Amino acid sequence: MVQLFYFADLFGVAVFAITGALMAGRKSMDLFGVLVIAVITALGGGTLRDVILNNHPVSWIRDDTYIVVASLAAVGTVLWVQLTQPIHEKGLLIADAFGLAVFTVIGTEVALQHNVPLSTAVIMGVMTGVAGGVMRDVICNEIPLIFRKEIYATACIAGALAFIGLRALDTPPWLDTGIAMLVVLFIRLAAIRWHFSLPRFHLLDRD
Amino acid sequence: MVQLFYFADLFGVAVFAITGALMAGRKSMDLFGVLVIAVITALGGGTLRDVILNNHPVSWIRDDTYIVVASLAAVGTVLWVQLTQPIHEKGLLIADAFGLAVFTVIGTEVALQHNVPLSTAVIMGVMTGVAGGVMRDVICNEIPLIFRKEIYATACIAGALAFIGLRALDTPPWLDTGIAMLVVLFIRLAAIRWHFSLPRFHLLDRD
Amino acid sequence: MVQLFYFADLFGVAVFAITGALMAGRKSMDLFGVLVIAVITALGGGTLRDVILNNHPVSWIRDDTYIVVASLAAVGTVLWVQLTQPIHEKGLLIADAFGLAVFTVIGTEVALQHNVPLSTAVIMGVMTGVAGGVMRDVICNEIPLIFRKEIYATACIAGALAFIGLRALDTPPWLDTGIAMLVVLFIRLAAIRWHFSLPRFHLLDRD
Repeated sequence: MVQLFYFADLFGVAVFAITGALMAGRKSMDLFGVLVIAVITALGGGTLRDVILNNHPVSWIRDDTYIVVASLAAVGTVLWVQLTQPIHEKGLLIADAFGLAVFTVIGTEVALQHNVPLSTAVIMGVMTGVAGGVMRDVICNEIPLIFRKEIYATACIAGALAFIGLRALDTPPWLDTGIAMLVVLFIRLAAIRWHFSLPRFHLLDRD
Repeated sequence: MVQLFYFADLFGVAVFAITGALMAGRKSMDLFGVLVIAVITALGGGTLRDVILNNHPVSWIRDDTYIVVASLAAVGTVLWVQLTQPIHEKGLLIADAFGLAVFTVIGTEVALQHNVPLSTAVIMGVMTGVAGGVMRDVICNEIPLIFRKEIYATACIAGALAFIGLRALDTPPWLDTGIAMLVVLFIRLAAIRWHFSLPRFHLLDRD
Repeated sequence: MVQLFYFADLFGVAVFAITGALMAGRKSMDLFGVLVIAVITALGGGTLRDVILNNHPVSWIRDDTYIVVASLAAVGTVLWVQLTQPIHEKGLLIADAFGLAVFTVIGTEVALQHNVPLSTAVIMGVMTGVAGGVMRDVICNEIPLIFRKEIYATACIAGALAFIGLRALDTPPWLDTGIAMLVVLFIRLAAIRWHFSLPRFHLLDRD
């Protein structure tokens, strides 16, 4: 079970690194820039969570598999695109939804182990899922997409709440983890399929 | 006294969250984006201070009132604006100056409790007051306003220095806190009223 | 030796602060903005490293010489430019390469003291060298230059690897430090002289 979860985590790292590498490519960065953006996208959310929770050592400080996986995913993306293979956008979105589900559950669980208030646990789940992508967008000089496009973080919030609720009912770990991940996946995939969005808040700029 | 200070702190959180929500509205973010920007604006400065000072647990990890207040302020702002009530800009500026005063004094005091050099205590006071707003502007893809408009951080520096000076004189807590807050408030309000600005440093871009 | 290294560190702080002040000038910031950008450029990389490694207290929290040096360098830059002295661009680039060399070696050494995996030590060396400049560019609303221009971070990677290799061979401290710094300096200066660049990754934006 723990083993399975570790591989799911690494899968999430790889997928997020790919989205980082693609964004770096859109900005015509050099190979170092591609690596850095990929690593930040993949590991930034978890690192921020651990630093704020004082949960040391941070995962990739302890175990360099994370960095290696993120780097290989970035290099693989560059090679794949250079060999003129098109990116399978839909496949990437589905993989990204899976990564989001894993990261959200991990983040929520780490927070619960620190005996924080429940609202903080939800925030830590969401932060783990989305902060890496926000850092990617901010460094690449874009307003973070997740604040504007189809439902994304809302899926994390629902998944984190499901996880906390099931954990409170003392369900076995494989069940609460599995259901919470399915909640994130289902909401996110439905939002992609039918273009669900949250209402936007428009305010005229009067500066 | 402690009770009073706690409410002043929450008032600052609410005001800063409102400025965050308004900025998110100018960028047409969705409701989740509004919440995130509001929370980062309200709690980002104190969080950065605590992480750098190794002052754990961070306030909102320990006590979820902070998150709740920031979220309610964000949601309230959206509702208020949707119901076509105009924002009272002047009122908001004055409330923001009050929040700035509270945050600066809290930040300076937390730093002094860690026995840091005095210049570091001043920086921590300023950081608590302004870093949330800087994060808001950076994520929203704006060059931080406080680096360009009327005197803002300078008010924090003066307030932090006043607080450190009075504390060294062993004045009672209500007095040093009160005077330091008044220093921030007075300088900031005077700058708004008469449009005081620091001189700017212009350098031709030769790239 | 330790004394010498301390001065080299402060020299790096001053140089990085100057590049921060110049960037702030290109964005027409006020004096406070110039100070903040200078300090973040000079101390941001080391602070991020220490926070992620849980290496407290952060250098400038413990010893305010760092802040003083960075501030003086920023103020000096403004005065220098105002008195219409042109900036000696080439001299600044060489000084920056020296600062990069010092920061990289310090960052790698701090990481090694925490018994991290070797890949993490390399990342910490690179982070110490480049993260301050990345923060400067992100806050100033620019895509970080080091992800696009001549070889920069690659010099840090080579220097960090050289340092780790020599340290494993148990060479005396002055030798591994000296050689690793020379590696960074040599690669960086060669890249400036002959305009070496890493290949870029171009991806058409299909949004």
